[in-house]
Amino acid sequence: MVADHFLDHEADEFLPEFRVEIGFLRQFAQAGDLALLTPRIGRGQRMGRFVGPDRLGDAEPFGQDMDQGGVDIVDAAAKGGQLRVGCGLGHRGHAYHGGGAVSKRSRVLPSGPRGRMAAGMTADIVPLPRKRPTLDPMLALTAPGMNSVNAVILDRMQSEIPLIPALAGHLISGGGKRLRPMLTLAGAELVGYQGTRHHKLAAAVEFIHTATLLHDDVVDGSELRRGKAAANIIFGNPATVLVGDFLFSRAFELMTEDGSLKVLKILSSASAIIAEGEVSQLTAQRQIGTSEERYLSIIGAKTAALFAAASRIAAVVAECDEPQEQALEAYGRNLGIAFQLVDDAIDYDSDAAEMGKDQGDDFREGKMTLPVILAYARGTEEERKFWQLAIAGHRSSEDDLAEAIRLIGKYDAVEATRERARHYAQRAIDAISIFPDSKARAAMAEAAQFAVARGY
Amino acid sequence: MVADHFLDHEADEFLPEFRVEIGFLRQFAQAGDLALLTPRIGRGQRMGRFVGPDRLGDAEPFGQDMDQGGVDIVDAAAKGGQLRVGCGLGHRGHAYHGGGAVSKRSRVLPSGPRGRMAAGMTADIVPLPRKRPTLDPMLALTAPGMNSVNAVILDRMQSEIPLIPALAGHLISGGGKRLRPMLTLAGAELVGYQGTRHHKLAAAVEFIHTATLLHDDVVDGSELRRGKAAANIIFGNPATVLVGDFLFSRAFELMTEDGSLKVLKILSSASAIIAEGEVSQLTAQRQIGTSEERYLSIIGAKTAALFAAASRIAAVVAECDEPQEQALEAYGRNLGIAFQLVDDAIDYDSDAAEMGKDQGDDFREGKMTLPVILAYARGTEEERKFWQLAIAGHRSSEDDLAEAIRLIGKYDAVEATRERARHYAQRAIDAISIFPDSKARAAMAEAAQFAVARGY
Repeated sequence: MVADHFLDHEADEFLPEFRVEIGFLRQFAQAGDLALLTPRIGRGQRMGRFVGPDRLGDAEPFGQDMDQGGVDIVDAAAKGGQLRVGCGLGHRGHAYHGGGAVSKRSRVLPSGPRGRMAAGMTADIVPLPRKRPTLDPMLALTAPGMNSVNAVILDRMQSEIPLIPALAGHLISGGGKRLRPMLTLAGAELVGYQGTRHHKLAAAVEFIHTATLLHDDVVDGSELRRGKAAANIIFGNPATVLVGDFLFSRAFELMTEDGSLKVLKILSSASAIIAEGEVSQLTAQRQIGTSEERYLSIIGAKTAALFAAASRIAAVVAECDEPQEQALEAYGRNLGIAFQLVDDAIDYDSDAAEMGKDQGDDFREGKMTLPVILAYARGTEEERKFWQLAIAGHRSSEDDLAEAIRLIGKYDAVEATRERARHYAQRAIDAISIFPDSKARAAMAEAAQFAVARGY
Repeated sequence: MVADHFLDHEADEFLPEFRVEIGFLRQFAQAGDLALLTPRIGRGQRMGRFVGPDRLGDAEPFGQDMDQGGVDIVDAAAKGGQLRVGCGLGHRGHAYHGGGAVSKRSRVLPSGPRGRMAAGMTADIVPLPRKRPTLDPMLALTAPGMNSVNAVILDRMQSEIPLIPALAGHLISGGGKRLRPMLTLAGAELVGYQGTRHHKLAAAVEFIHTATLLHDDVVDGSELRRGKAAANIIFGNPATVLVGDFLFSRAFELMTEDGSLKVLKILSSASAIIAEGEVSQLTAQRQIGTSEERYLSIIGAKTAALFAAASRIAAVVAECDEPQEQALEAYGRNLGIAFQLVDDAIDYDSDAAEMGKDQGDDFREGKMTLPVILAYARGTEEERKFWQLAIAGHRSSEDDLAEAIRLIGKYDAVEATRERARHYAQRAIDAISIFPDSKARAAMAEAAQFAVARGY
């Protein structure tokens, strides 16, 4: 028999590649049996999820007669945070069953949880090194265009006032991924746009983003940005505010040069929404009562609006129809929300790798992000007291931060936040499914997966 | 004889309205003589400069036979800072001469400097209460349009985030004159534009200006703005920066709705220039070596660029030809420079009336404005030492401010700054002389005069 209902949807999303190692108890296992059975695993399963016989290194020498025998993985389902795999064997008239289980919470599957068959068979689930999604396909897709965009950026941040390029350059050459202009370029590839108008517009998008970052650093009093001293620390708040204004104006000059009123409308509206989102976040700061809904509306404005606009304008310059424009808009918006959720998760993630951003910034600033909102909602009365004091600014030491991270860990609030992020990343991926499969679409999908899988 | 070369150009600009009181030494003056002679003064002179007989109150009863007699003011010339008026009388075969002089420096003419005739005649120059130029004609001209503009402003500063209209409204309803949108409206009147497109654009101009003010207050750490606590003091720097960004974005939304790429180009370019000017001013701050040329380029950018753009776009919506567009641009630019020069003069003007702005702000912030540049240039070595320390921030007490005002007074640097301002105001007035005379042109000219005559 062959699995006919292997994997349910949730397990499908959850599972990394793995192999199942079948073993037989000594009394009846023979080398020949193993040779016949092992390659059978994974046949007919989804590509890229289940390994093919070629990756079952140990089994390779025996791969020839693999149609014989009857090992089957009968089900894999994610339930209650665990993945269960059952397997059975019809062999020489006998039926054997076994299974393995891994915790969903651990994300990286532990090596070799072992389910032993009642009737002498073992099934070990051995995770293969996961192929993590990366930004590489996106970077490769947009590399030629980004050269042009970078040239525009460098050209248009110049000024006779030397402080302007010095300050702007500090941030612009400071190691940002330029994800937003990349969205414009990728969107243009996706819809097959052949011109070059989007280069200036992508630069405008990056200028708006940079202006926002500069003003954010002043607003937050940040000391670090992307692992370097923030512009406001080096150049002072006044210059940082004003150079932000300069870049913002330059963005509109670039758009005006392009001449599309539709693009201008999209980006000026996005800019107003971003500012509203930032103000809204400011008024939610130190307000423990901030709900998840309010939080989602804040990040929808302050982050996702520019992602959405950056993506959408690709469809505008390419003169796509409205559904395509909407699809790119939805891709960008959902990706932006996912991106921000993960950013906010990382700020409390005890596993998080070393990163440019100071961990605990959000905590010290009393920002209400989803990990806090969830830990607060799920917490005991006593824990809530802690959060009330902490968010109000009365508990902000390193010890308090450690306690916050502990509580967030206790209620899985980082993982829950990442889970929310995966939801939006999936919506982003589905939004562009109206376009035919292409290198661009795959790169954009992987970028969405990367956005939620990243640990930095 | 009748004056044929009365007043030279400089005297013309310098003179307020005055009357000349003729007297005769007792031995030959008679009531009848006075009756005949007094009304003769000022006949044939320029309107609005010299008073007509109807304002010579004392002479009125005798005004009937005024063509008889031969008093003449033979010359009035401004030389070496003094105004001299000579008068002569051909009377019953005798020639008499007399004269008066007033110091140009005193601006308000002292009452009755007395020149006595060698031959028994006196000529007293008595200043009449000056009819100060006001903004009233401009206000009257633009009042209907400003209602619409104000409606747009109120409508578009709204947001679901209550802090935004609260903060924006604090400044927007804070008693500003809304001079910049008024320029757009006045320009539209001047060129006979009949539509309403300029209402939204004028609101956009005011939003850009308001955003700049908000950011300026953060940059300068101002405590007062227009006599009220500055927004940053009430709402904090973060919200002030962000609401500035919001208004700036709204400005571009309004322009985009209007749909003129030419207007968008003019205003986005002006916005970038404003930001450059602000940064340039920041880098000149506390730099005693800042030259007048550098200063003019700073205020040309930070202030005049928006005046110029606000005026110019009136010609754009009215689809005027290029010379008319240029004329309005030049009007705005020169007016803006004049306006800023007077602002900077007032900050050190010991005569300045109570005003909303804190006097001495520029001094304490070490801003290099023209009064300081001139007092420094004209000062002794010792005085320059004072300025070096003061601008560097080492002399900023109230006593130091008093000393600064004293030195500026000593070298007439406030008056010299106002004189420079009058130069630009005149260029503004001359720039619009290509348009036919009209109520709008007169109002705009008087607004330019007002800009330089104001003491607040």
